[in-house]
Amino acid sequence: MALIRNEVFSCFVFYAVLLLVKMYIIAIITGQVRLRKKAFANPEDALRHGGLQFHREDPYVERCRRAHTNDMENIFPFLFLGAVYSLTGPSITVARLHFLIFFLCRVLHSIAYLFALRAPTRSVSYSLAQIPCFSMAVQILMAVSTYA
Amino acid sequence: MALIRNEVFSCFVFYAVLLLVKMYIIAIITGQVRLRKKAFANPEDALRHGGLQFHREDPYVERCRRAHTNDMENIFPFLFLGAVYSLTGPSITVARLHFLIFFLCRVLHSIAYLFALRAPTRSVSYSLAQIPCFSMAVQILMAVSTYA
Amino acid sequence: MALIRNEVFSCFVFYAVLLLVKMYIIAIITGQVRLRKKAFANPEDALRHGGLQFHREDPYVERCRRAHTNDMENIFPFLFLGAVYSLTGPSITVARLHFLIFFLCRVLHSIAYLFALRAPTRSVSYSLAQIPCFSMAVQILMAVSTYA
Repeated sequence: MALIRNEVFSCFVFYAVLLLVKMYIIAIITGQVRLRKKAFANPEDALRHGGLQFHREDPYVERCRRAHTNDMENIFPFLFLGAVYSLTGPSITVARLHFLIFFLCRVLHSIAYLFALRAPTRSVSYSLAQIPCFSMAVQILMAVSTYA
Repeated sequence: MALIRNEVFSCFVFYAVLLLVKMYIIAIITGQVRLRKKAFANPEDALRHGGLQFHREDPYVERCRRAHTNDMENIFPFLFLGAVYSLTGPSITVARLHFLIFFLCRVLHSIAYLFALRAPTRSVSYSLAQIPCFSMAVQILMAVSTYA
Repeated sequence: MALIRNEVFSCFVFYAVLLLVKMYIIAIITGQVRLRKKAFANPEDALRHGGLQFHREDPYVERCRRAHTNDMENIFPFLFLGAVYSLTGPSITVARLHFLIFFLCRVLHSIAYLFALRAPTRSVSYSLAQIPCFSMAVQILMAVSTYA
């Protein structure tokens, strides 16, 4: 259990879990929008909520889906990179900066997606969030290249 | 290699790997349905199997795809939460209960999806599976908040 | 930090990070194709790049999306299986073979997808990449079954 008492690893886990909770919230929002707009992906759900005519797509449901998919494409790799980066022994100040930038940019990304904020808010927050990820990837590759 | 000899971590890994195998099986089923129904996502696959008219969508292939995507949205976060939760030193009885509920609900979710069982079987199994995930997320946040 | 000095774990991390970088590159390509073909998933992006008529789908953008989704379905499970497999104490030669086969087949898979190579290049590389994954899954289940 030494890992969980490591300051950098704990800091990483804190932001990582908050980001997963953020993803769960997007899933809950998607479900609520499906119910409110009566737009179901499956005929069996439509049947339960009024009839097969509600087995249909809705632009806002699709927007929620895209926000969720983009999170999977970016937050899941962060879970791996952040965990391994924590093992390479970075300073807590530098590490926290990596995690915090990623966290804040991904929260902004979700807000920009769900509220359809004017471009390029969403793509700028996506791009900024990638900087700590590329940085961690490079530092990990340098750390393991001695052993790999 | 002390981690792999930890009872809680081993219990988690056991169910986690079975769930990944379950996901691989859904991918195999999707491929078989594509071949049987002749519905290919890529023109080069359609050309090999009879012609470009088979570059088309099929409702049951799309159902398999949705089951797979829902698994990614839920099982991948479990892989992270379960691993970190195991490091926080929970009792094996409580931990096994978390993993087992998630495992059984996600297997039921896949069955409900692939056999189009009457609503709300699928959404109830999805919601029940989220309970151990939220529980683990809260326990992890409490464990790291001392150090983060 | 003993983990990162473990030869098998370092070898795994090396290929895992390269595969994540490969996924980031596919995301960058998707964005570039969207700009070049003027095909945007969101109306706010289309508005910024010429008008709502560019809020549309494009076959090559969809191809990039499918390549990315297939990577999520396969590379993310590898991140988990490879990490846990490294903890089971395999020989470095056998482990490296697992990681290398997966790595090379997934790179070939992306090339076959993005260049629409003749079938069954893409599906063969997908299937070959699954062999080390199934092998690691079985070895992990055998390793933890003593403790689970």
